[in-house]
Amino acid sequence: MINIGIIGMGRIGRVHMESICTSVPEAKVVAIADPYLTSETETLALEKYKVLNAYKDYKKILSDDSIDAVVICSSTDTHSAISIEALKAGKHVMCEKPIDTDYKRIIKVVEAVKENSHLKFQVGFNRRFDHNFMALKEQSKNLGAIHIIKITSRDPAPPPIEYIKVSGGLFNDMMIHDLDMVRFLSSSEVEEVHVYGGALVDKRIGEAGDIDTAIVSMKLSSGAFAVIDNSRQAVYGYDQRAEVFCANGMVCSENDAPSTVKVVTSSGVNSEKPLHFFLDRYMQAYAKELKCFVEAIINDTPTICNETDGLKPFLIAKACAKSLLESRPVTIAEIEEELSR
Amino acid sequence: MINIGIIGMGRIGRVHMESICTSVPEAKVVAIADPYLTSETETLALEKYKVLNAYKDYKKILSDDSIDAVVICSSTDTHSAISIEALKAGKHVMCEKPIDTDYKRIIKVVEAVKENSHLKFQVGFNRRFDHNFMALKEQSKNLGAIHIIKITSRDPAPPPIEYIKVSGGLFNDMMIHDLDMVRFLSSSEVEEVHVYGGALVDKRIGEAGDIDTAIVSMKLSSGAFAVIDNSRQAVYGYDQRAEVFCANGMVCSENDAPSTVKVVTSSGVNSEKPLHFFLDRYMQAYAKELKCFVEAIINDTPTICNETDGLKPFLIAKACAKSLLESRPVTIAEIEEELSR
Amino acid sequence: MINIGIIGMGRIGRVHMESICTSVPEAKVVAIADPYLTSETETLALEKYKVLNAYKDYKKILSDDSIDAVVICSSTDTHSAISIEALKAGKHVMCEKPIDTDYKRIIKVVEAVKENSHLKFQVGFNRRFDHNFMALKEQSKNLGAIHIIKITSRDPAPPPIEYIKVSGGLFNDMMIHDLDMVRFLSSSEVEEVHVYGGALVDKRIGEAGDIDTAIVSMKLSSGAFAVIDNSRQAVYGYDQRAEVFCANGMVCSENDAPSTVKVVTSSGVNSEKPLHFFLDRYMQAYAKELKCFVEAIINDTPTICNETDGLKPFLIAKACAKSLLESRPVTIAEIEEELSR
Amino acid sequence: MINIGIIGMGRIGRVHMESICTSVPEAKVVAIADPYLTSETETLALEKYKVLNAYKDYKKILSDDSIDAVVICSSTDTHSAISIEALKAGKHVMCEKPIDTDYKRIIKVVEAVKENSHLKFQVGFNRRFDHNFMALKEQSKNLGAIHIIKITSRDPAPPPIEYIKVSGGLFNDMMIHDLDMVRFLSSSEVEEVHVYGGALVDKRIGEAGDIDTAIVSMKLSSGAFAVIDNSRQAVYGYDQRAEVFCANGMVCSENDAPSTVKVVTSSGVNSEKPLHFFLDRYMQAYAKELKCFVEAIINDTPTICNETDGLKPFLIAKACAKSLLESRPVTIAEIEEELSR
Repeated sequence: MINIGIIGMGRIGRVHMESICTSVPEAKVVAIADPYLTSETETLALEKYKVLNAYKDYKKILSDDSIDAVVICSSTDTHSAISIEALKAGKHVMCEKPIDTDYKRIIKVVEAVKENSHLKFQVGFNRRFDHNFMALKEQSKNLGAIHIIKITSRDPAPPPIEYIKVSGGLFNDMMIHDLDMVRFLSSSEVEEVHVYGGALVDKRIGEAGDIDTAIVSMKLSSGAFAVIDNSRQAVYGYDQRAEVFCANGMVCSENDAPSTVKVVTSSGVNSEKPLHFFLDRYMQAYAKELKCFVEAIINDTPTICNETDGLKPFLIAKACAKSLLESRPVTIAEIEEELSR
Repeated sequence: MINIGIIGMGRIGRVHMESICTSVPEAKVVAIADPYLTSETETLALEKYKVLNAYKDYKKILSDDSIDAVVICSSTDTHSAISIEALKAGKHVMCEKPIDTDYKRIIKVVEAVKENSHLKFQVGFNRRFDHNFMALKEQSKNLGAIHIIKITSRDPAPPPIEYIKVSGGLFNDMMIHDLDMVRFLSSSEVEEVHVYGGALVDKRIGEAGDIDTAIVSMKLSSGAFAVIDNSRQAVYGYDQRAEVFCANGMVCSENDAPSTVKVVTSSGVNSEKPLHFFLDRYMQAYAKELKCFVEAIINDTPTICNETDGLKPFLIAKACAKSLLESRPVTIAEIEEELSR
Repeated sequence: MINIGIIGMGRIGRVHMESICTSVPEAKVVAIADPYLTSETETLALEKYKVLNAYKDYKKILSDDSIDAVVICSSTDTHSAISIEALKAGKHVMCEKPIDTDYKRIIKVVEAVKENSHLKFQVGFNRRFDHNFMALKEQSKNLGAIHIIKITSRDPAPPPIEYIKVSGGLFNDMMIHDLDMVRFLSSSEVEEVHVYGGALVDKRIGEAGDIDTAIVSMKLSSGAFAVIDNSRQAVYGYDQRAEVFCANGMVCSENDAPSTVKVVTSSGVNSEKPLHFFLDRYMQAYAKELKCFVEAIINDTPTICNETDGLKPFLIAKACAKSLLESRPVTIAEIEEELSR
Repeated sequence: MINIGIIGMGRIGRVHMESICTSVPEAKVVAIADPYLTSETETLALEKYKVLNAYKDYKKILSDDSIDAVVICSSTDTHSAISIEALKAGKHVMCEKPIDTDYKRIIKVVEAVKENSHLKFQVGFNRRFDHNFMALKEQSKNLGAIHIIKITSRDPAPPPIEYIKVSGGLFNDMMIHDLDMVRFLSSSEVEEVHVYGGALVDKRIGEAGDIDTAIVSMKLSSGAFAVIDNSRQAVYGYDQRAEVFCANGMVCSENDAPSTVKVVTSSGVNSEKPLHFFLDRYMQAYAKELKCFVEAIINDTPTICNETDGLKPFLIAKACAKSLLESRPVTIAEIEEELSR
């Protein structure tokens, strides 16, 4: 039985608590920590989920020897520091994405993971654990060399403009998942990107210096090509599809819907829209993510999404931003060279 | 907060315990009872789900004043007696189907429910709570008079021949859910049935006096018609579909599959089979069923599946058996008259 | 090159002329005949399709030695007499369904075909040549014994009430195609039928002594079961689907639609209705039907739909009518015995 | 009745002859011309389709005053010259794509069309007339501003390497249709393109200086973005899909298949591959194309695909080739400026 402490009890922290308690029988949430812990969350944890301790200070979790692993869901700017502290305290770490928004701090986490190679480190790219994308990857393995990967990823509605302003931009805030998905599905590295993008959904997003619509095409080291299309607003719901085109065939995944029902009338055949809310679409994936993390600890196997998987999309997103700014293709090598100067 | 006791801790009892604990925040399982309670189940209940008491004798649940409601999952022959006892003890009752295999004992339950009209009674026709069938019913309401209802219901594989022998036959053991579904979808009563059936899957089923394949057509009191096709063996999985054809259109539901992935190769377009296991298909429905039961108690509203809904499919199944035996259409009135003699 | 004469130039006669001229390169329409030939049809035939002769009297076709085969599309009451005459005149015959509405006259055609076994005789059950139903039959061959056949067949709208009155009733006028389809898909004979039916679409149809909605279940000589559901009015179009459930799997066919386009908006996913008009759905089938007839002549192979295939659905339709009238299952043997008295 | 002469009787010339004769009742093919006319084609034309004259020299068609319009299907290098001659001879022109492979010669055709504004000129981008793409465009009109257009276009197998060498390259030979489709669906102009491409299917294609796989992303003058993915080899058939993502929803089209049949077994749900052969997929579109051309003549309305629609994809293809060569985005303006020097 793996004892887990959760650091940061916002929405995603609560999701992980619930997932572990209901779907990961090999693990137990024994402590939670959040400087702004609400009494509601505390009650939920202590009463419903029988968590033993609820702290304001996460350091109490790190110093508790009965705790094997931590799940870091605190604010983004604390991810890297707490990850390093936790590793030093001998805890396995599951860290929400992104590891950090600063290259040097990410590198420090990568180094800390290397120094503590007996500990597991997993980054929270939850879509890797989605039933559709897992099946997609699995099936594509039987189809020979990958030639083209296509990812469609559209949100049902943009976040508030105030959030946009501090979000780090479309590439970091939204497309980062898709950049990871290209790597996951291709088992290859992105070498170069080219971006077209603009603010077609909401002018204010453009005025805030961001975009809401983008086409990113890519060259992979395997020789394959990939293309992602993003929009901040698909009025019909959360649109999450992918297609892997290979030498010997093609695999594609469609959206999930609330039901399989079709209504056939004189106006046509009407079926249900995709699930609207990302938690509905990816709830099972969040549970699977935690389960895989716990299994990696128990079986001492590599995590499915490690520190490199946390670093690489960060670099690609930087390349995307530069491509958009400078209207030219940008290599990842250029970005790495620039950042490591 | 509704306190619940579960009587009978076989597979379905454990499913209900898990559903309540993970998906019905308004309820708490405070006690379980089973004369053959395994230590594994006891540990699961007491440790994982924090149930307070685990008994061998269900009467301890009935005499516990802190308990508001019971979920009866004991062996079929005890359903009616425990239901009546529980009602007399002032407990709301959720009783697994069937209420009983004997008409007079079902009627006694019906009467006990009437005498305790302040208590809720719900029968466990879980498919009424399935996301697909709920959407089907909901959408059909907008399409005018129902003309034809079609239900396909096929199991992935027949149960062992020993089970078949004591199962009560295809109509009671398997089709009973579909008979309920016709009533649920039509909001009407079955008046007459005609059956064609045989043992096409396994001769030994025929030798045991049962059938494994059947076409049941029906006349409903609304004037509509219905047809059910059953098979004990669909090699491709658990096949659960329905179609409601109305004056102004048609609604149909398809099976659920593990993923939406399509593999397109030179051999065709391959997508996933239906979910194979009934618990996979109906897990959400079991949770919804319990949630609706608890909500009916809290809000003092009628249950979605009451004692009459438990009685009627029993009568229709009897009519089916007689139609098969005598090779003629049989009315429900004939069966009722016969049984109430 | 097979020279063909078409007798009867109503809608279906013109369809056959067009099919032969555009899709059957091995055949040529050299003459047409119709007592009420319109000048429009005559012009179409002579100018567009380069037909050599247009007669009022079909006997001129029968006496023309250059003509190898006739396609009989005249009024139903003349089918059997002209068929026999044509066979005697040494012509291969493609006869529109039904052969006749009278048993004894059908039997005479059956005998005439036997006496002229060097000539081909084909009945116009065009759906056997539909790309979907042909693929359905083809695929079902790989799936072991057939257990259940389900056919859904619904017209977009009922014909005028005046037509209903002289139509011979739902079973003969509409379901006859589905009765043939059961035989075609099963490669077995119908032994017994049971019918539920009523006038749910239009009361006047009921007042005219007919029904517009029916569920017919059947026992086949192979041991399999079949069920057909018919409605005179599916507001969403011409609904023509089938399903063959077998020991080793299931095959089903869906409707054809004008395009594959899906419109996804906040109101759901909308795709196109089935094709509305039977000629749109079955145009290719009509052409294939003629092509197969001509190939049977050229290669001296059996036709896909022979005189027995014309007779049997007639008997089954009679059994259906009797089942509806007498509210009991009726065997085909009973009908045959009755008619041959 | 429009009298038509067809110039060039290769595969596509014969397709057009058949289309006009079977599907365009308002037109008649009165003459064909081909310097290498086979006797088989001549017989087909004169006997089956009742064409009056079959020439070796197309000038006999141009000098025949009874002929209203010509369909130019000769070899690509003769398209522009014959088009201009035909216009001067007072004939309406339907010219197969491309108008030419040389900019200056295309411009001369454009000018000739302007000088003869009483005559219709149509270029053979047949996909504009495909039932799926027409429905796609039609439906997208109701969904507000277009944000993203995605086109997937993959051939079942590459042409022989000898053909590749003289084909003009992927952009001209294959993607040209998709470049037109972007303009057709967007009702906007392409401003800039960026290309990733390579020879992933067959190394010899790369050795011949061409590519077989490409991702082309684009900026449109409307502000929208588009992306095309091409492959010379989709082993599962001819893959022709598109998606238009708009402010108020999304429209997508799927491939056509030979039948709607699904085979459901223990290996999954198997449905048919896309149609393999481009003539199967686009046969109706070819007929519709001719019908629209004839209607434009009769009603004196603009053609759906005019000389500008012939010119623009040529320019975009040039920009694509340059983008691939120079690994940078290239504007259409740059290409135009370069060519018009």
